[in-house]
Amino acid sequence: MAHINLNNDKPGIVGLFHFRKDTAKPLCELAETLLRGPSPLSSGEREMIASYVSYQNNCHFCHTSHGASAAHHFDGDLSLIDDIKKDFQETEISDKLRALLDIAKKVQKGGREVNDDDIQKAREAGASDREIHDTVLIAAAFCMYNRYVDGLNTWAPEENRAYDEMGKMMAHEGYTRERPGLD
Amino acid sequence: MAHINLNNDKPGIVGLFHFRKDTAKPLCELAETLLRGPSPLSSGEREMIASYVSYQNNCHFCHTSHGASAAHHFDGDLSLIDDIKKDFQETEISDKLRALLDIAKKVQKGGREVNDDDIQKAREAGASDREIHDTVLIAAAFCMYNRYVDGLNTWAPEENRAYDEMGKMMAHEGYTRERPGLD
Repeated sequence: MAHINLNNDKPGIVGLFHFRKDTAKPLCELAETLLRGPSPLSSGEREMIASYVSYQNNCHFCHTSHGASAAHHFDGDLSLIDDIKKDFQETEISDKLRALLDIAKKVQKGGREVNDDDIQKAREAGASDREIHDTVLIAAAFCMYNRYVDGLNTWAPEENRAYDEMGKMMAHEGYTRERPGLD
Repeated sequence: MAHINLNNDKPGIVGLFHFRKDTAKPLCELAETLLRGPSPLSSGEREMIASYVSYQNNCHFCHTSHGASAAHHFDGDLSLIDDIKKDFQETEISDKLRALLDIAKKVQKGGREVNDDDIQKAREAGASDREIHDTVLIAAAFCMYNRYVDGLNTWAPEENRAYDEMGKMMAHEGYTRERPGLD
């Protein structure tokens, strides 16, 4: 049960969006811009960074839903969620994405953890300033979303499958689509 | 020097807002709504929570500018910035605000740190669901802003005085006012 009375039974951040709609608006717009707006990183790559950081923050709702969204951006294979849990050690990704995930991991611990070497490694793997920027902001933003979801103890479905439909909607319809009762 | 070329010489998050304007928009709107929109907590109390969390995250730019803003909401006394550093132990604040700051401190560490006892203590000190909600979201949001500012190694003035004018503008004009070159 959530720490406060949300007056709705929706899971995770969706219940919070319905509790306070004026903060929901910029929070949804930020997610839409960050994860689906123009960027040299694909939406699938950005969802993967979001899911990875959420897993590091132990936020089941965000980790699993954004993992499912990432999977829908690629080939619909939900095993990607489990790969993310394994720290991507066994996942075939580019050296650039691996270097960006290393930066995201540092940001999750704290902004000052990122050092010149991390940036240099990302550059050597082909990352641009804009890709480094977007990675840092996505990682930072999910340190917010994760704390919002878990700091108020919202409820989350347990099984990966329950997130499949959610991830599909996130991947294909985005974060600012009309939601009954919210818009 | 920032980790990436921002193409401007503005300090802290302002330089980042000018680097990527499409994410600046929801980030500014979120700050405006959270810190200056309708809430049972005063803007001064909310700025104090923002500054406190930023100090815990060791983010000099955010801690000092929001501390200055909090001071301008009260009586313009910048010593408030230093009181915040002392963990409020010597600052005269209400039991309710102290309980909410305790929750903010937990959120800074991680969403799952907040437990039923923390919520119960805040309720006993008179905090409403909405006040608890706003505290958690402000604390979570500054875990984002702080990581964004420091994860990209933006520059920050060192002296408290340099933040006085910034805090005055934040307190009195807010976060979505027209900014040359940004709007």
